[in-house]
Amino acid sequence: MDGPTDDGTTAPQVSRRAVLGGLGAAGGLVGLGALPGVAGAAPGAGSRSNGTARVVPFHGRHQAGITDPAPRHATVAAFDVTATDLAGLRSLLDAWTIAAERMTRGLPAGPVLDVTRAPNDPGEAMGLGPSGLTITVGVGPSLLSGASGARFGLSTRRPAPLADLPAFEGDALVDRWSDGDLIVQACSDDAQVAFHAVHALAVTGAGLVRVRWSIDGFLGTPRGTESPTPRNLMGFKDGTVNPEPAQFDRVVWAGDEPRWMRGGSYLVVRRIRMDLAAWDAETLDDQQETIGRIRSTGAPLTGGTESSAPILRGRGSQAIPAGAHIRVASPAANGGARLLRRGYNYSAGTTEAGDLDAGLLFLAYQRDPREQFVPIQRRLATADALRTYVTAVGSGVYAVLPGVRPGGSYADPLLG
Amino acid sequence: MDGPTDDGTTAPQVSRRAVLGGLGAAGGLVGLGALPGVAGAAPGAGSRSNGTARVVPFHGRHQAGITDPAPRHATVAAFDVTATDLAGLRSLLDAWTIAAERMTRGLPAGPVLDVTRAPNDPGEAMGLGPSGLTITVGVGPSLLSGASGARFGLSTRRPAPLADLPAFEGDALVDRWSDGDLIVQACSDDAQVAFHAVHALAVTGAGLVRVRWSIDGFLGTPRGTESPTPRNLMGFKDGTVNPEPAQFDRVVWAGDEPRWMRGGSYLVVRRIRMDLAAWDAETLDDQQETIGRIRSTGAPLTGGTESSAPILRGRGSQAIPAGAHIRVASPAANGGARLLRRGYNYSAGTTEAGDLDAGLLFLAYQRDPREQFVPIQRRLATADALRTYVTAVGSGVYAVLPGVRPGGSYADPLLG
Repeated sequence: MDGPTDDGTTAPQVSRRAVLGGLGAAGGLVGLGALPGVAGAAPGAGSRSNGTARVVPFHGRHQAGITDPAPRHATVAAFDVTATDLAGLRSLLDAWTIAAERMTRGLPAGPVLDVTRAPNDPGEAMGLGPSGLTITVGVGPSLLSGASGARFGLSTRRPAPLADLPAFEGDALVDRWSDGDLIVQACSDDAQVAFHAVHALAVTGAGLVRVRWSIDGFLGTPRGTESPTPRNLMGFKDGTVNPEPAQFDRVVWAGDEPRWMRGGSYLVVRRIRMDLAAWDAETLDDQQETIGRIRSTGAPLTGGTESSAPILRGRGSQAIPAGAHIRVASPAANGGARLLRRGYNYSAGTTEAGDLDAGLLFLAYQRDPREQFVPIQRRLATADALRTYVTAVGSGVYAVLPGVRPGGSYADPLLG
Repeated sequence: MDGPTDDGTTAPQVSRRAVLGGLGAAGGLVGLGALPGVAGAAPGAGSRSNGTARVVPFHGRHQAGITDPAPRHATVAAFDVTATDLAGLRSLLDAWTIAAERMTRGLPAGPVLDVTRAPNDPGEAMGLGPSGLTITVGVGPSLLSGASGARFGLSTRRPAPLADLPAFEGDALVDRWSDGDLIVQACSDDAQVAFHAVHALAVTGAGLVRVRWSIDGFLGTPRGTESPTPRNLMGFKDGTVNPEPAQFDRVVWAGDEPRWMRGGSYLVVRRIRMDLAAWDAETLDDQQETIGRIRSTGAPLTGGTESSAPILRGRGSQAIPAGAHIRVASPAANGGARLLRRGYNYSAGTTEAGDLDAGLLFLAYQRDPREQFVPIQRRLATADALRTYVTAVGSGVYAVLPGVRPGGSYADPLLG
């Protein structure tokens, strides 16, 4: 694709890429101001800081935004495809590729154009720098089945691991917070840069796609002697046990079938509302027994530090309580099944009932949800002491596309 | 109040302060971990960075969070008071004072307590540092009139400037995003610290108050050669013309009547939804004519740089168009009336209609809304070219309490 530029005026150099709508227009070169150049930015540097010059490489075997450290902000949105044929879908994915690659370098989603046309970038990220932006794109079951599958001729492409999630006890799913033909996860050091990425993709895809749902997530910035593990809005460290890089092939990345998904992954998104008023009224003792950890340090109740292995077998004070969240969710209790969690806290105002509408935007990447998320969640839904305080109100499963090669497109693996 | 501590274990030293619920309990000192000390933090230092050691002084003639620079994140919430008598209201405001003062120093909302009681702090800000937190509290007309005014005997205390806002053309106000007995504006360098402040005040006030509405706001972090003026989600710089410190007495701070409001201010909050799909489809030329400024630089259409004065009189290309936002909103067009704006962008998912539910959380501080916000908004509602693209869906006006003296309480000015 086009190399780094200082002023956003260089048009993409990949001739086969479809250039949609105003994306190719370069008239008076007025209006869309220059974004600062990214020269000198070290990929991965300062990943937990607000260092807005940080650039995460866009191209590779895998998409970014999965195994790299989660920055402080995310906007996650699902889109439904309104394109009427396969050419339209391809154009959409090609245009999104160009826009996403540019934005991760701190450039506007499309090149500068003349004031007599609608801008191809909505503009609110001008001057904010790359800010560690990653954009991660996947497809939902609805794109590859039913009416859409027939419309685009993609019904035979649906991977077996992209099975519809079963109903889980306790779920209270809201249709307009669930599912979607496409998923976009935008993560950044800067909340406005994350929002802008989703907004700009909506602009780029106007007429071919529409937003189905969108949610913004955040994490705190631990400092001093505090461990980097983020706290959820119940006050507990969340994500202490996550797979190590050596386990990613087995836990995170898709297997050999179907071939087009090699280098991809599967993402389960759950909008998990917390009943904070009920939780906050419990004693600290009860909270800690429910989670299985000490709130202040994150250490398991069976002793040690945050990184100590909890004692998960046995009864009484020698072991984590049988219903405690970390025991029910543990790989040991689930035949070794693990997930790569990349969750964010969310705050979405208040519920109709007048409570804070806040909780966890659960994002879990995995090799096969049928063998990972589904059995784990089945256990949690009936045995986890935490289930009294949390309710899934949104849900979706997506096939996260393989990484984009230089000069390639999101469309390549799926559409060939 | 209590001096800075390293570990959050020192109970407040002000004996007359009512200590509610679990706030005074200090048993086994287990669980609520220490927050990092704030030694060495310079008030006001690094105000635009993510420097989480930043402390903004709590005490003073005025509350913080009004004229100090707006950090990147805000959570703004309205509460309705459920206390049944004046003693309950006083207890609430006293307890909020203690909690707010502690949190602005990076301490938990209440001192450490024993695991057999509910925590007096919900915990998610542990380890995040003070993060420049400011907490700004005000009272709405509903607290000082009607049933509440009678219940608390406060009907005679209502300031004349705290008049109910009139209906404005084009408003589509939603009751559950409007009004409220109390307003809390929490601003911070860290989104989680801002959310936590509101959450912790809800916990502190349990049984005396309940959340009516809450919304989270953000600003981008300009870098490099970009001016510090933030951009709104329409892509334009917003807040270029704000009063200078020398004007604050005339523009921002309450007058001599009523006496109890000396040092206070009046806040108008408007949740202004942007029709981004319609805006994004306009040509850049039309957008710029609608605002009156060049999008990239923020300069007025009549030339110069962002800080140049726009030419507001006359017709044709020699002046800003008659309906342009900056001309209709200008002090010159409004008898010199100005506002101290402290707006934030917001993203609240999607509307029922399937558009991004995003816009501007307009926060404007002023001496008297009857002479400032109301006449300006009356003009905007009928003459501003921007009105096609923006709709107020939430609204409220509040008397922002004077600053708290060391050892004092939010309750002092209003309740004596």
